[in-house]
Amino acid sequence: MRTPALLAMLASLVAPAAGIAADSLMQAAQAQFKPIPAQPPALPGNPASPARVELGKMLFFDPRLSASHTISCNSCHNVGLAGVDVAEKSIGHKWQKGGRNSPTVFNAVFNTAQFWDGRAKDLEEQAGGPMVNPIEMASPKEHVTEQLRGIPGYVAAFKAAFPGEASPVTLANAQKAIAVFEATLITPNAPFDRYLKGDAAALNANQTAGLKLFMDKGCAACHNGINVGGGRYAPFGIVEKPGAELLPADDKGRFAVTKTAGDEYVFKVPTLRNIELTAPYFHTGRSWDLRQAVGVMASSQLGLPVTDDEARKIVAFLEALTGDQPKIVYPVLPPSVATTPRPQP
Amino acid sequence: MRTPALLAMLASLVAPAAGIAADSLMQAAQAQFKPIPAQPPALPGNPASPARVELGKMLFFDPRLSASHTISCNSCHNVGLAGVDVAEKSIGHKWQKGGRNSPTVFNAVFNTAQFWDGRAKDLEEQAGGPMVNPIEMASPKEHVTEQLRGIPGYVAAFKAAFPGEASPVTLANAQKAIAVFEATLITPNAPFDRYLKGDAAALNANQTAGLKLFMDKGCAACHNGINVGGGRYAPFGIVEKPGAELLPADDKGRFAVTKTAGDEYVFKVPTLRNIELTAPYFHTGRSWDLRQAVGVMASSQLGLPVTDDEARKIVAFLEALTGDQPKIVYPVLPPSVATTPRPQP
Repeated sequence: MRTPALLAMLASLVAPAAGIAADSLMQAAQAQFKPIPAQPPALPGNPASPARVELGKMLFFDPRLSASHTISCNSCHNVGLAGVDVAEKSIGHKWQKGGRNSPTVFNAVFNTAQFWDGRAKDLEEQAGGPMVNPIEMASPKEHVTEQLRGIPGYVAAFKAAFPGEASPVTLANAQKAIAVFEATLITPNAPFDRYLKGDAAALNANQTAGLKLFMDKGCAACHNGINVGGGRYAPFGIVEKPGAELLPADDKGRFAVTKTAGDEYVFKVPTLRNIELTAPYFHTGRSWDLRQAVGVMASSQLGLPVTDDEARKIVAFLEALTGDQPKIVYPVLPPSVATTPRPQP
Repeated sequence: MRTPALLAMLASLVAPAAGIAADSLMQAAQAQFKPIPAQPPALPGNPASPARVELGKMLFFDPRLSASHTISCNSCHNVGLAGVDVAEKSIGHKWQKGGRNSPTVFNAVFNTAQFWDGRAKDLEEQAGGPMVNPIEMASPKEHVTEQLRGIPGYVAAFKAAFPGEASPVTLANAQKAIAVFEATLITPNAPFDRYLKGDAAALNANQTAGLKLFMDKGCAACHNGINVGGGRYAPFGIVEKPGAELLPADDKGRFAVTKTAGDEYVFKVPTLRNIELTAPYFHTGRSWDLRQAVGVMASSQLGLPVTDDEARKIVAFLEALTGDQPKIVYPVLPPSVATTPRPQP
């Protein structure tokens, strides 16, 4: 049962950028997308000193932020696996499964909001979620600060990262530090970035054809901007609801955040950057095949069937979104001492 | 009930290096210990090419070697936490707990054998254990090879690491590659290493006094050599059996390997290198306090009570065993593709 409002939105979403000629394709792309910068963006109110970035990296990798001391941010947002965990749902505290597929942390700083339902406005807010979520890292809120205060090396690191604060070891500051580290996890220099900067040869013929299809068919109506997605929300199944496997009835997406009927089954449009590295796909993580995922999107969001050849070309374009993976030196974590709180059973 | 043979062994173990004068302490130490070299040692029959070390590093960090795709070697031998997981027992597949405390992988290449009971003769043999152990990574043997063969980047990486082999993607080669990477995880340049190389000022007064106590009281009878341990086996509780919390009756240690009555409650003497970073202690992981652990050793192994002051000095010496932690760039892992085997439920 579609409402007129939804239909109007649908029309605005899928209106293809009709008639892009090959010679103006680059200009059209430059109008819709932006390259990833070489340097991490600044976060408002959270300046990225080297000490703060290093602290954030330590926290990102530290399993002692979880109740069991076995799960870190990196467990589900593995920096060696393009910021994901290559699983449908992540395994959390006591082997519980998360509710949705773990989105990549790479380039997440460029998203309009965080989580599939956008319930956190930025990385800083997001970072507070999994630590205290009982099915993820499951730390009681006080545990995180007690833990950090119980590790002398962290007390020193927080002082260096938040100079002038009387009592810098707080969950809020941990979130800030994690956010500035995560903001460094960007993947510049993808072939598509070089193309956007004027190098037409950065995309091969298939990738160029794929880009044209991506824009002509309307994919770029949602997947645009610097992150080729991540900038807005959209109902999953605008044209045709996918099956319950991909869109289970009990997860109404953004509706849980806004309690607005129009937000039922609405999700944040995910970034497509590094998409070839971040299977499985969709909020359910039920699609392991990028070509199949393209087909699902075409039918459910655009109502436009794609031929095998078109899907192949679109996938070729999507592969051109793989950028330089960040080079990360594993942090030496400050050691626990005899009085440090221990893992919780 | 102690047998005469055990008593004789005990006598040989605890005979203190009586009468070491302060001025000859360095020579006495140089006779019993060796510094960690700056470069990783070569492994017999397993040459460490850059390609093989890099492959080993990827495998060490890859959770896809576990059935669930969530547990990697680094989960329990965390390179940011001195090669351990700061837990009594590690959490494995489906939240099962391991049987013994995870020993550090750092400097493990210098141990005489691997595991607490020495059941693997070297790192290569050890690396095959946890991957297929049903309470650890829980991969069926075939799964490991199927998984690796299903990831194109690994096929290429194995070819580069094992040139000239017709079918290089095997579990045996994975173990070889992991072993050469692990052999790089050494921690040279500890204060005690500099002392052994002739710099008397590398140890402060307390540490020097601690070293003297360590040798005079007989600790060095077992904890000697390059790893200050790791070179032999010893019964836990030679003089006085510790309580069941530290020495539970159902874990007979090396007896399970050799089926020899004399090996009941015998364990490999652990390395003391980086010991301040690798709490909790003992095969049970039940002691979180290094000073307490020193006291347990003194009473159970030596029958010599130590005063608080002596324990403090011995701990100061043990802290001089902390070396330079290895600098590791997190590997970019080869991506899964649509046909790659998926996590097992």
